[in-house]
Formats: sequence, structure tokens, C-alpha cells
Amino acid sequence: MQKALADSADPEILSLSLGLPDPSLFPSADLTEAASRVLKDNRQSLQYRLPPETLKAEICRHMAARGVECSPDQVLITNGAQQGLSLLVRLLLDPGADIFEEEFSYTAFQQIVDPFAPRITTIPSNSNSGIDVDALEESLARGLRPAFLYMMADGHNPLAVTVPRDNRQRIADLAREFHVPVIEDDPYGCLQYSAGGIPPIRAFESDWVYYVGSFSKLLAPALRVGWVVVPRSLIPPLSVVKEAADINTGTFAQWVVAEYLATGALTSHTQELCREYGMRRNAMHQALEMSLPDHCAWRVPPNGVFFWIDLPASLNATELLPIALREEKVAFLPAEAFSRGTRTNGMRLNFSRCDAVQITEACRRLGRVVERVRPA
Amino acid sequence: MQKALADSADPEILSLSLGLPDPSLFPSADLTEAASRVLKDNRQSLQYRLPPETLKAEICRHMAARGVECSPDQVLITNGAQQGLSLLVRLLLDPGADIFEEEFSYTAFQQIVDPFAPRITTIPSNSNSGIDVDALEESLARGLRPAFLYMMADGHNPLAVTVPRDNRQRIADLAREFHVPVIEDDPYGCLQYSAGGIPPIRAFESDWVYYVGSFSKLLAPALRVGWVVVPRSLIPPLSVVKEAADINTGTFAQWVVAEYLATGALTSHTQELCREYGMRRNAMHQALEMSLPDHCAWRVPPNGVFFWIDLPASLNATELLPIALREEKVAFLPAEAFSRGTRTNGMRLNFSRCDAVQITEACRRLGRVVERVRPA
Repeated sequence: MQKALADSADPEILSLSLGLPDPSLFPSADLTEAASRVLKDNRQSLQYRLPPETLKAEICRHMAARGVECSPDQVLITNGAQQGLSLLVRLLLDPGADIFEEEFSYTAFQQIVDPFAPRITTIPSNSNSGIDVDALEESLARGLRPAFLYMMADGHNPLAVTVPRDNRQRIADLAREFHVPVIEDDPYGCLQYSAGGIPPIRAFESDWVYYVGSFSKLLAPALRVGWVVVPRSLIPPLSVVKEAADINTGTFAQWVVAEYLATGALTSHTQELCREYGMRRNAMHQALEMSLPDHCAWRVPPNGVFFWIDLPASLNATELLPIALREEKVAFLPAEAFSRGTRTNGMRLNFSRCDAVQITEACRRLGRVVERVRPA
Repeated sequence: MQKALADSADPEILSLSLGLPDPSLFPSADLTEAASRVLKDNRQSLQYRLPPETLKAEICRHMAARGVECSPDQVLITNGAQQGLSLLVRLLLDPGADIFEEEFSYTAFQQIVDPFAPRITTIPSNSNSGIDVDALEESLARGLRPAFLYMMADGHNPLAVTVPRDNRQRIADLAREFHVPVIEDDPYGCLQYSAGGIPPIRAFESDWVYYVGSFSKLLAPALRVGWVVVPRSLIPPLSVVKEAADINTGTFAQWVVAEYLATGALTSHTQELCREYGMRRNAMHQALEMSLPDHCAWRVPPNGVFFWIDLPASLNATELLPIALREEKVAFLPAEAFSRGTRTNGMRLNFSRCDAVQITEACRRLGRVVERVRPA
């Protein structure tokens, strides 16, 4: 992340590499008002104090809009989704134990589990339908009982795929049948650009699916407000892990977000985000059609902030990257970053950070990079 | 903490139990201005972005005023001091390895190390001079090489003691000689009520003393802005641990604190805090003299937010606590909480949260509790 952040700060490089939201879309004026009210009306909000119950209640309303029923006593507020993932791993994973991971998976989750030196079973995943549920079932039927399966169902990072409804139901059923927790990471699920979004897996199973959400992509990353939804019984042990990590105390930003949500502004703000990011998605689709050669393949994502480009097996995205940076001043993330080095013929492209004009130009540059290295 | 927070929220109970700052002393107006400027001038401050370099530079100036020379590339910003401690432990401690801990030690640090099931060597500490440096030297001379020694030198929690200058020098020398890292926890070091404060141990040794600081007691806890000062070479691995924990990104609160510090207001604000907390300390000393029987002993702390009361060996503070809560509606924390249950005849009293009138009344109630249970 640090290296990629440095690239994306280079003004000459058009960077499609990170999943950054566009700062010009942050609701800064509303957040300023919320912050002033918090600081003016409630000095206790700056004190050591349990996280705001009002925020938990707002999160439950937000989850209900996403199709998930839960109650405030099933919610733990975290320092962004990353902390939610990190706390769940520390709660569930003993050193050297088994875990299930998708073949393509969020890099920073690998950073969380690696210090535990787990035995990793890789479940194939692809850009058509995400995780391969048959393969998942086979691994469970073989008797493997991992500490958890980590996966994404919407706006998949990096595959930009949406897991079909039937597959979600099957994953929920398998989790329940085999008593295997599913950590469902859902930072992008509210950024929907088509009608007919599907509820997260947590909506299909409440005991064995642990949901991780965040306001980083909906409001602003630097607020660091995320949450997990878990069975009630896990809240006390998870609170102990949280307390050891950074004290389980309400933060200034949590109070600001609670104050902001109480105004009801999130719904229209999310609609605005979806309208704008939806246009950027369309711009990227069109630009890719114009610029990329026929041997590149992709699907138009119905949600999230990424396109995934499948390259022919003979093309290595990791080898393309330095050429892209040096010759064309365009950045992306290669398949290797997400597959523990096992896969090379894919690229992840972000469409939330740049505007439509930049996206079109970036895709043109990318097209020239790919043309340069024709497949064997 | 959660239980104690609940106690301190009961309006009938005068609580001296937690180390809470007084919210009426938070610089809310200045923070409001800082927050408005951050949100207005700099949308990038809400984006994923490395922590503000301006904040690191301000922290170095702050450390210089404390007698410590360091540079921004030796500073990692954390989510409060607790996260600094937690990240250092994750970096330094392998499961089952040796650590050195003071006999009386911050409870939440125990929560950090316990999941690693370390072999703990307890170094005696007392309310006269803190950690017993002779005992420390003996343990090292016997060949023990712990992952670290965790300790406090100023405003000791819970012993309210200040480690003498010569002892700091000896600890620094031992750390260097035996290549044993010292984690120096210093949340209260800037709350000095007497002339002649001593620089932290980090001022005596920069390679083997890892310093942990925080603005929680100086500005406000809910900002969650702390830092560590470590050798330059440890910043990259520590950043990786931080990234796994919650992404190493600048937070809204970090930008607000940087903006606040740039105004130069911290110096006068700290003086105001010291004047007010100094008066409360004096009020508590006087009230203890009036209210506690002769078999209770204490020293007037030159810094920090606690008094430590040594009780006769026959008095068990843990047994006094329910009586205090039920009969006299006063709360404190007993020795057992800080000594892994090995010591019972001591009480920690906080003087920063209540005003002088409440402190006087709380000590009167405490006196009645102690009188009730005369020592054998």
C-alpha cells in the first residue's frame, strides 16, 4: 500500500492502482457541521467512553437497507474494516491452524494472517462468479475444518465480480452445516450501479457469517469508522481483543459519523456517489472497448470500484507494470499481488479515483502497453 | 476498563478508579477551529494517505521539550498509546518467549501480552522509587534475555512514583549492555506539578529504549492520537504491523491534532492543565491527611494523575472495594488489578477526573471505609 500510495501521489502518473474514493465527493460540508455539533454540545464525546450506541443503531438501519437484519448488540465498531478483519483473525485463528482463502484475495488480508503462519487451502475463484462453491464444498467434504473462510461477495477485490444469489445461499448452507465461520468483507457493497443488487451472505445466515463493513468508501477513509456484525456471544471476546489493540473507546470520528448519520443524509449521498461512480464505470468500459486488444477480457461490474482484466496466459501483468509506469505513466495492480504470486495474467483497474477524462486517457495508455507486448 | 467505565458513569458513585482526564479541560474551542480548517482547506486529509509529516515534526518538538532528541523518521503515529504498545509487542514478542514486567504494572498491557503466553519474569517495584534496578540487573546477570522490559518512569500507573535520575541512567546502561529493549510507556510525563522533572529514559539511550507517547491526557482521549519513538530501522517493520492492524493511514483526528499543534497552543494548554491538576493533587493530599488513618501511607506524586496508598499487609483492598461501592459510594482500583493478583494491600486513586470538592468528599468516604476494617 505504501509503495502504491507513493505512485498514486506522482502527478505524472495516471494511477488506476488503488481502491481510493474521490476526495471531491466527500461530504465535507456536512461532516464539518457534524463535527462542530459534536465538539460544541458534547464534551463527553472526547472522553474515554464506550462507542456511541446511536452509531450502532444507525449501522443496524444501514444494514437493514442492505437486506441484513441485526441488532446493536451484534455490532462492534472498529477502526475501519481493516481492524474488523484483524480483530476477527486474532479471535479465530491459532498459529499454524487451517484457513480457507480465495485464489484471488485482498492483499492486506494476507498481511493479517501471515504472522500466524496458517495452513492455507486455496479455493479457486474467477471473474465470472467469484469463489468456486463446488471446490469449497469438496474441501469441506474432505474433512478440512478451517478457522474461517475469508471472502467477498460484492465489488470483489480484485476480481470485480458479484457472487450469484444461489451461490450465496450455498455458501451460507455450507457454513452452517460444517460449522465453519465465513468472514464476509463488504467495503463496496453499497456502491451499486444496477438494479437488483443481492443481499450479502450474512442475510442468508446469521450464526456462521461474520460481516465486516466500513464507511471508508461511503463517507471518507480517514474517519476510520468500520464495524463487524457477529453473533451476540462473540461481542465480549471481540471487545477484549479490541481493548488490547487500542482500547475499546468511542473515537471523535465515531461521534461525528453518528451525528452525520442522524441527519439522514447518507441515503442521498450514496445515490450521488453511485451516479458519479456509475458514470465513471461506464466511461472505463467504453475506454477499454476502444483501447484494449481482443485478447483482453472483462465484465462490466455491477458494483464496487474495480474492473478486472483477464489477459492471455502468456502475458505477465507483473512484467507489464514497469513498462506501464516508465513508458506510459499509467499504473495498475497485477494479478500476482492478489494471488500470493501464483497467477500473473490479470490486472486490477480502479475507476473511483480518476474522473472520466482521466480514465479514458489512462485506458488509452494501458492499451498501448498491452499492444507493445503481443501474446506469444 | 468496561466495568470500571460503567462504575464511573453511576452518578451516585464518586469514582477515583480510572485515569480519566476532566472533559471540562479539553481545548474544545481550539479543536473545533482546527477541525473546521482541516475539513475546509484540505479534502486530502480525509483520504487514504500516509500520516501527516507535519504531525511527526510537531511530535519531535514536543519530545524535545521533554528532553528527548529524535527525528520524524523515528516516529510512528498510532491510534493512542495503547496501539503503540500493542504494535511493539507484536513486533518484538514470539509466543512463549521471555518478557520482564514490573511487579505493579498497567493492566491493559497485561491484556496485550497474555495471548502470547509469555514467560514472565516479575521485577519488583515499589512506591518509593519504582522498578528495583538491582533486581533488574540480577535477572539480566543470570542470563535472562527477554523480548523486552515494559515499564513506566513518570506518573507511574499505578504506583504514582517517579524513577530517580540515577536509576534511569542505570536502566539505559543495562538495556544497551544486554541488548534488551525497554518499552517506556509515558502517557503522563508532561503532567508535571513540581520543578525539576527528569527526562524519560529514552533521553539516556536511543537505540534500546522504545518510547510510547500520547495526546490522550494532554488534549483528549477520543482523538486517539499517540506515537512511538523507535530506532529508524524499526519504522518499516512496525509500519507493516500497523498496516495489518488498521492500515497505516493518516486519520482525521491526526490532521486535527497537527493543525492544533501548529498554532502553538499546546504549551499554554499544558500549563493550564498542570495548574488545575496540581491543585487537585494538593486537595487530595490534604484530604488524605485529614481522612485516612495512620496505617495508610503515600507520597505526594510530582506528576501524573494518581496517588498510591500502601495499606498494612493485613488489609486487602480487593475486599474493601465492594464495601466502598455499597456503603460509601466511592470507587478506587485495588492492588490486585495491577499485580496479576499477587499483591492486595494497596489502592490507586485518581485525582484528574473529579474537582477538589469531590476529591475531598471521596477521600472522606474512603477514610470511613478503611476505618471500618481496622488491620489485625
